[in-house]
Amino acid sequence: MAIVLFTDFGSNDVYVGQVEAVLDRHAPGVRVIHLLHEAPPYDVRAAAHLLAALAPGLARGHVFLGVVDPGVGSERGAVVLRADGRWYVGPDNGLFSVVAARAAATTVWRITACPPDASPSFHGRDVFAPMAAAVATGDFPNAEVAPAAALAVRFGGDDLAEVIYVDHFGNAFTGIRARDIPPARRLVAQGREIPHSRVFAEVASGAAFWYENSSGLVEIAVNQGHAARELGLAVGTVVAWR
Amino acid sequence: MAIVLFTDFGSNDVYVGQVEAVLDRHAPGVRVIHLLHEAPPYDVRAAAHLLAALAPGLARGHVFLGVVDPGVGSERGAVVLRADGRWYVGPDNGLFSVVAARAAATTVWRITACPPDASPSFHGRDVFAPMAAAVATGDFPNAEVAPAAALAVRFGGDDLAEVIYVDHFGNAFTGIRARDIPPARRLVAQGREIPHSRVFAEVASGAAFWYENSSGLVEIAVNQGHAARELGLAVGTVVAWR
Amino acid sequence: MAIVLFTDFGSNDVYVGQVEAVLDRHAPGVRVIHLLHEAPPYDVRAAAHLLAALAPGLARGHVFLGVVDPGVGSERGAVVLRADGRWYVGPDNGLFSVVAARAAATTVWRITACPPDASPSFHGRDVFAPMAAAVATGDFPNAEVAPAAALAVRFGGDDLAEVIYVDHFGNAFTGIRARDIPPARRLVAQGREIPHSRVFAEVASGAAFWYENSSGLVEIAVNQGHAARELGLAVGTVVAWR
Repeated sequence: MAIVLFTDFGSNDVYVGQVEAVLDRHAPGVRVIHLLHEAPPYDVRAAAHLLAALAPGLARGHVFLGVVDPGVGSERGAVVLRADGRWYVGPDNGLFSVVAARAAATTVWRITACPPDASPSFHGRDVFAPMAAAVATGDFPNAEVAPAAALAVRFGGDDLAEVIYVDHFGNAFTGIRARDIPPARRLVAQGREIPHSRVFAEVASGAAFWYENSSGLVEIAVNQGHAARELGLAVGTVVAWR
Repeated sequence: MAIVLFTDFGSNDVYVGQVEAVLDRHAPGVRVIHLLHEAPPYDVRAAAHLLAALAPGLARGHVFLGVVDPGVGSERGAVVLRADGRWYVGPDNGLFSVVAARAAATTVWRITACPPDASPSFHGRDVFAPMAAAVATGDFPNAEVAPAAALAVRFGGDDLAEVIYVDHFGNAFTGIRARDIPPARRLVAQGREIPHSRVFAEVASGAAFWYENSSGLVEIAVNQGHAARELGLAVGTVVAWR
Repeated sequence: MAIVLFTDFGSNDVYVGQVEAVLDRHAPGVRVIHLLHEAPPYDVRAAAHLLAALAPGLARGHVFLGVVDPGVGSERGAVVLRADGRWYVGPDNGLFSVVAARAAATTVWRITACPPDASPSFHGRDVFAPMAAAVATGDFPNAEVAPAAALAVRFGGDDLAEVIYVDHFGNAFTGIRARDIPPARRLVAQGREIPHSRVFAEVASGAAFWYENSSGLVEIAVNQGHAARELGLAVGTVVAWR
């Protein structure tokens, strides 16, 4: 079991280390896995779909500390979710709602207490990290939560026909699960029709294609190229099927 | 207790991993926390103020391995500092001097021995990492240090009215502690007056403001914008109050 | 002993965390060291020389999970190598062949079994990570490997007179080991003659020089400058001696 971080804190700033120091204090022996710190910033919906694609690939028991939280310091709620044996701690702004909608079994708690000296701009460190540590060490449920009927903000579990992430190779993840898409279908993005390929090695150099990526999503790539730049794709670009 | 890295090695090169391998060899069970590897390069004074703001937020007992070391390979000294229950290992070039000046209690040792095969360009790996591991594992003081009266280079404990760090959102940390600044004051940077706000959510989109950031420093931000780019701020930019 | 990652996955994407989650599942107590995730992408030869320079500086017993794998999904083989007491798990595409050629003692196994649900584009996570965990936990050799006479692709152990890596300071590593190069020699790159210096502090600001870097390689640097940009160096740039 590990605490898995999924945030838009940026990989290279001081924020991740500050969170890890809090986790070390409250859950000293627990491994911390840095799944992503470049989640689409402020884009809770895209991040929610990305997390829902990634989380089931990791072991049950993990505690996800998820922070994409443009409303920090406002009145948005905070939540602990248990879904199919994995835990999620973070803002109640929809970030965990795609995970929840697709899960067979969920339990929800509202976080009701905020440490008095919590920074209004860094709940990831001051509210969610101590709570994730409490879950990871078995000190949960505790006095700082109350059972809740459901998440407050819910995007639903359907696929999202948009680009939700662009990796450093320029490959564009969509929010569409590839499992049920016949390879004969052509994806349309920015007015361009894009055929399927199973792997990079089966298309010509420079050719665009879609494939089922290693997280089960429809991904747009250019063999030996930078798909996002060459096709004009960014988080939020709408895609369709033909 | 953990070994906390604060360096300008860059997050993505081979240097951090090489240091961590040395720590693993000499302090196998000890957690390593990567607080920052993008400290202002070569800028010891700015880095010293940033470290002094961050370190007290982490638990006592931690061993900070601090390396911003433009003089590596020259005659600058090397030091172990104990300040208010935290340890600091690195160059004696002022990097720890703001921490020391603000601490209630300090003890200083000079590092007197350098491993014969140490790379002249990488004391972080070959001198400071083994020493930090020795401190972390209780093998300290050892034959490689001698008590010292004080740090050799001292910047003092006063605030620094300059930008000392720009994060990946473009927010600009200053070296001014926010605690004692009345919210009515306006910050001046690049000829522009900047009012206070408590949180991002309370200012208009695109508006610049200063606030107490999560490390206790006065920080300049633009709501949903990139303050450094929009206001022309960089490490070293002088700020004032009106 | 640790599992040491050396990949071109990029430091900031989801891939590293996904690999670490697999390692956590199969080798829960074992430290993971991130040596490099910005290995020259697709450039197996340059990466092979960089790994051969770095690996001997780390302790014996470590398990290197090495992935620079442009042929993933094609018919290239997969391999476990033991060389001078260190382990290497990854594609049999030459990546470990410089290490092997320079080692005093090597043993090679082919990986013969691929998990049925392995992603065709992410063997690092689905094939190599479980195998590295098996090696690290002593569950090796196992039913998924067969002894092999030698690596399939071999670059040999000679130096490579090219730039093989550029760090974030702009310093350019070559594939030439510095040990036997007399300091009187001048390096030639992009038509320019570059003299030797022992350390940065001994050359004028803005001057280019070569020196033995902290990994034992000939490196081209500009004091307080960005050598790659100023001299036009990139991975693959040929260098020579005069």
